[in-house]
Amino acid sequence: MRTGLTPAEALRALLEVTPVMGAETLASRDALGRVLVEPVVSTRCLPPADNSAMDGYAVRAADVAHASPTTPVDLEVAFEVAAGAAGEGSLRPGEAARILTGAPLPRGADAVVRQEDAERAGDRVAVRIAPRPRENVRGAGEDVRVGEEVLGAGTLLGPAHLGMLASLGRSTVSVHQRPRVAVLSSGDELVEPDGEIAGGRIVSSNSYSISAQCRELGAEPVYLGIARDTPEDLERRVRSGLRADVLVSSAGVSVGDRDYVRPVLEKLGCTWDFWGVRIKPGYPFAFGRCDEDGGPLVFALPGNPVSAMVTFEQFVRPALRKMTGHTAWFRPLIAVRLGERLDKKAGRLHFVRVRLERRGGEVVARPTGSQSSGVLRSMTEAQGLLLFPADATELREGDTATVQVLDAAFLASPDPGF
Amino acid sequence: MRTGLTPAEALRALLEVTPVMGAETLASRDALGRVLVEPVVSTRCLPPADNSAMDGYAVRAADVAHASPTTPVDLEVAFEVAAGAAGEGSLRPGEAARILTGAPLPRGADAVVRQEDAERAGDRVAVRIAPRPRENVRGAGEDVRVGEEVLGAGTLLGPAHLGMLASLGRSTVSVHQRPRVAVLSSGDELVEPDGEIAGGRIVSSNSYSISAQCRELGAEPVYLGIARDTPEDLERRVRSGLRADVLVSSAGVSVGDRDYVRPVLEKLGCTWDFWGVRIKPGYPFAFGRCDEDGGPLVFALPGNPVSAMVTFEQFVRPALRKMTGHTAWFRPLIAVRLGERLDKKAGRLHFVRVRLERRGGEVVARPTGSQSSGVLRSMTEAQGLLLFPADATELREGDTATVQVLDAAFLASPDPGF
Repeated sequence: MRTGLTPAEALRALLEVTPVMGAETLASRDALGRVLVEPVVSTRCLPPADNSAMDGYAVRAADVAHASPTTPVDLEVAFEVAAGAAGEGSLRPGEAARILTGAPLPRGADAVVRQEDAERAGDRVAVRIAPRPRENVRGAGEDVRVGEEVLGAGTLLGPAHLGMLASLGRSTVSVHQRPRVAVLSSGDELVEPDGEIAGGRIVSSNSYSISAQCRELGAEPVYLGIARDTPEDLERRVRSGLRADVLVSSAGVSVGDRDYVRPVLEKLGCTWDFWGVRIKPGYPFAFGRCDEDGGPLVFALPGNPVSAMVTFEQFVRPALRKMTGHTAWFRPLIAVRLGERLDKKAGRLHFVRVRLERRGGEVVARPTGSQSSGVLRSMTEAQGLLLFPADATELREGDTATVQVLDAAFLASPDPGF
Repeated sequence: MRTGLTPAEALRALLEVTPVMGAETLASRDALGRVLVEPVVSTRCLPPADNSAMDGYAVRAADVAHASPTTPVDLEVAFEVAAGAAGEGSLRPGEAARILTGAPLPRGADAVVRQEDAERAGDRVAVRIAPRPRENVRGAGEDVRVGEEVLGAGTLLGPAHLGMLASLGRSTVSVHQRPRVAVLSSGDELVEPDGEIAGGRIVSSNSYSISAQCRELGAEPVYLGIARDTPEDLERRVRSGLRADVLVSSAGVSVGDRDYVRPVLEKLGCTWDFWGVRIKPGYPFAFGRCDEDGGPLVFALPGNPVSAMVTFEQFVRPALRKMTGHTAWFRPLIAVRLGERLDKKAGRLHFVRVRLERRGGEVVARPTGSQSSGVLRSMTEAQGLLLFPADATELREGDTATVQVLDAAFLASPDPGF
């Protein structure tokens, strides 16, 4: 097993072996945020028939070729075509048909005159302009032709795509499955939020933040509960997670006397790809696979709340994005100016939790108080993670740096741009 | 009723009267993406007790004040404190206690020596460094004190916040309700996706795209179906949406002969604030309120698929964001360079559907083919909406412009930054 990898090596290693999930067929309206497995090819043309783009009068363009405001051409209004009407009528020379937006163009007609450009009087209409042939007509198949690929494989389905699927009459669609993620905490000191915290016990917050990180990505967390620090309890719980696509544990993979997660997982068929990544927080992160038995990818996160969230963010999130069929795996990056000096030892890349503030076209980043990996509060206040490079030992106030943006609201504009 | 507003006037008018939703109490783990109504004040301190930040030995700092690698100090390992142990033991001078990360510091101890800095032999340990008092100790309340406001009102709850709520033992939380949005389509030409499209009929795609736009925002769509073009059917369907927080209709609010949406809504108590906004697509957009009867805000969108989506995006989305308690109401804006020339008449702000491409530190925007408001395909391919200002008549290739970014994946980085 390799150890002491750079984060880039670790990420490359795990993404290389992370599979993309198989297909499932969903009702189209439930497929928001999913990714298409195969292209959507239309079996219809859109619009299905020539139709009117305006409320007005369907005409034969030749009849009104010389019409103008001063020399209007008088036509007989022979019938009316409502939207969705069957289109039985047929226009003869000298005739017009009243037509509403979206209604099928009657036989014989080849243009539509807007009602603003005509004057109705009883069953006659005076046309004041000479439309070009096809003017104000939406042609059949103008939008989509039969047999055309309308949405490509890999398309992330948003509201417009669901509208398009409806238009095409596609009530089901084949998308990548959502990964199921078994989430395990371990430690005798851990209790659930309603548990008794006397005597050094603390709430197992990791399972809550990790499950939420999964849900935010569209993955399905399955919480296996808190394993006690015995090989037996750990094994029992891990076994119930072996059918998941991914197993995420927190704590128990360090050098402590009671770190049973590694041996238990090995017993159950897990092969470790690496342990230990040169980052802070989050050094004791391990990645392995039970996949010879068709078992899950295994991400063993450190137990400290911040270390767990940061390693999820750096390693589990890109993997889950890949599994779900997404091509965009990483957070937006922005350039920032340091609002205060930072120091560290050389050797590890630090992820500094920062608040962000726009100031005169620039963004200023300041650490969110204590950077201790035990202080979850630093994550609740963090709008981004500042990358303090492995080899650097200081970043001075005013220096530039790169930040991974966690807070989507920071990117939102304070105004709509108009 | 006012008419012909600028989009800024329209937005200001509707946001001014848009209320923020009331509170509901949710299980904390279900509150991801919700907004806090009131601050969360801690009734605990975190960590709850002094505890060890490392696996190692709890000591009395005074005992080992002169320890060094060459002059180690020998202590008796009197007992062991596991994580979550009750902390019964008490350290006497000359004694150490084996301690694991997170375990409560025993009485008498005031520092922890990392196991790397000590050598165990039987029930003795040789300490090779002199820790400062409190070294490797996480103090009780270091993260959160009793009575402290940990999360402010208005906080958008992300994974870290759910972890923090768990740590605080808060299993429920008070958040803004999600607005219920009644979605109505109307038109005799409309059918559901599995309907027969012969004879000029088309699928009602708007209800699908609008419902998805609602869900994407965390609002709850309630689809009222397709109203036929009769006042009776419209009234029956609108009545069943009057208990919603918002009513969004599409089509039926123009100058067509059968546009019954406005009169029917007026009959049911709706007062219109304005009709007609100087934009394209989307001029025939209306906003009103049934709120004298405690009824919904009413957004009457145009019927063309693109017009409906664009007016939802510009007017309904910011309102729903406000209702849900968010402070970030608008899409990210970016500066782009035009990839091709655009022309239009002066008078209306145009929202041009564009594809975006990064090229050498800049973003180049190109229209997505046909900009006809009937061509939904232009929305499925659009990564953003380019603002072509009302007074402008041309934008030349190479000119700069502002784009509202719809495609979050465009903002994602192709790499993690390390």
